[in-house]
Amino acid sequence: MKEIISVIRINKVNETKKALIDAGIPAFTATGRVMGRGKGQVHYDILQGAEAGHPEAIAQLGNAPRLVAKRILTVVVPDELAQTAIDTIIKTNQTGKPGDGKIFVTPITDTIRVRTGEEGDEALN
Amino acid sequence: MKEIISVIRINKVNETKKALIDAGIPAFTATGRVMGRGKGQVHYDILQGAEAGHPEAIAQLGNAPRLVAKRILTVVVPDELAQTAIDTIIKTNQTGKPGDGKIFVTPITDTIRVRTGEEGDEALN
Amino acid sequence: MKEIISVIRINKVNETKKALIDAGIPAFTATGRVMGRGKGQVHYDILQGAEAGHPEAIAQLGNAPRLVAKRILTVVVPDELAQTAIDTIIKTNQTGKPGDGKIFVTPITDTIRVRTGEEGDEALN
Repeated sequence: MKEIISVIRINKVNETKKALIDAGIPAFTATGRVMGRGKGQVHYDILQGAEAGHPEAIAQLGNAPRLVAKRILTVVVPDELAQTAIDTIIKTNQTGKPGDGKIFVTPITDTIRVRTGEEGDEALN
Repeated sequence: MKEIISVIRINKVNETKKALIDAGIPAFTATGRVMGRGKGQVHYDILQGAEAGHPEAIAQLGNAPRLVAKRILTVVVPDELAQTAIDTIIKTNQTGKPGDGKIFVTPITDTIRVRTGEEGDEALN
Repeated sequence: MKEIISVIRINKVNETKKALIDAGIPAFTATGRVMGRGKGQVHYDILQGAEAGHPEAIAQLGNAPRLVAKRILTVVVPDELAQTAIDTIIKTNQTGKPGDGKIFVTPITDTIRVRTGEEGDEALN
């Protein structure tokens, strides 16, 4: 199994979730907030304000191409669906502009469904 | 070392933490919010409202067996305690009804205690 | 590639981010909230109150050496920068007092830049 962690634009989260379902990904999906950055210059006071939720700071972040508020969307999929999940996330989020986001792939050694005790790929369905 | 990521009902978090301590798990514990889903139908406007914290939307989520607000509870344990942690989480959260949650296991290659620089299982104590 | 997950004091997050940039870590950085605990005694009502954001409960947590509100700071780095990242985090956060935090290292099998489709270490730059 693989955990596919995508860091994408906030306004792309629901479209991405829908695309994953349409692609037959029977995955557990989790979202979280994150402040992403590239290798550009970072203004710490703005970053700090944005993390505290101040709209002025978040608006300024939006103007800087390499420092943007993002969402994390995590799906856990069987190995054979990992590439489909990645392709679906890229297709839904690729605009060609900086800030399209990143995808990280990490191994999951086991999954257990609590209700039944089922383990492995079956627990993902 | 293993990271045991459990996605469980919100009202089971504290009971689960207590059970892990009682089972001798000397683990670091972290919690986070998450919206889980199974393979059932998803109503996006409700999901979106629930993620934004609107009580009406969350209440409607509660009625749908396969789309529920959950908490993530993460513990990092030595390999030999992984099964104990999993069994403890299952025992505490298994009601037999949909929505009991899932457990994901992922490898941790090293842990370091910042205060002392200790590495490995010792850093988990 | 490695994911370096550090659980550190809230007031050390920005200093740590700055130190990582100064050390040449071209990493994606994400932060999240977490309630850490050691192996000491846990007062559940205080923990619960602190997680709900009540200042009185958080203040009480602050007095207990082994139960503190923390931030998670995650960076993903090429393998050859993992030790530099760890050393930088330790140097910035080590006070010698309980609560300095922990660092967890976990493997990342692939990273993809959504904008270009680039994979591997190049996608981290």
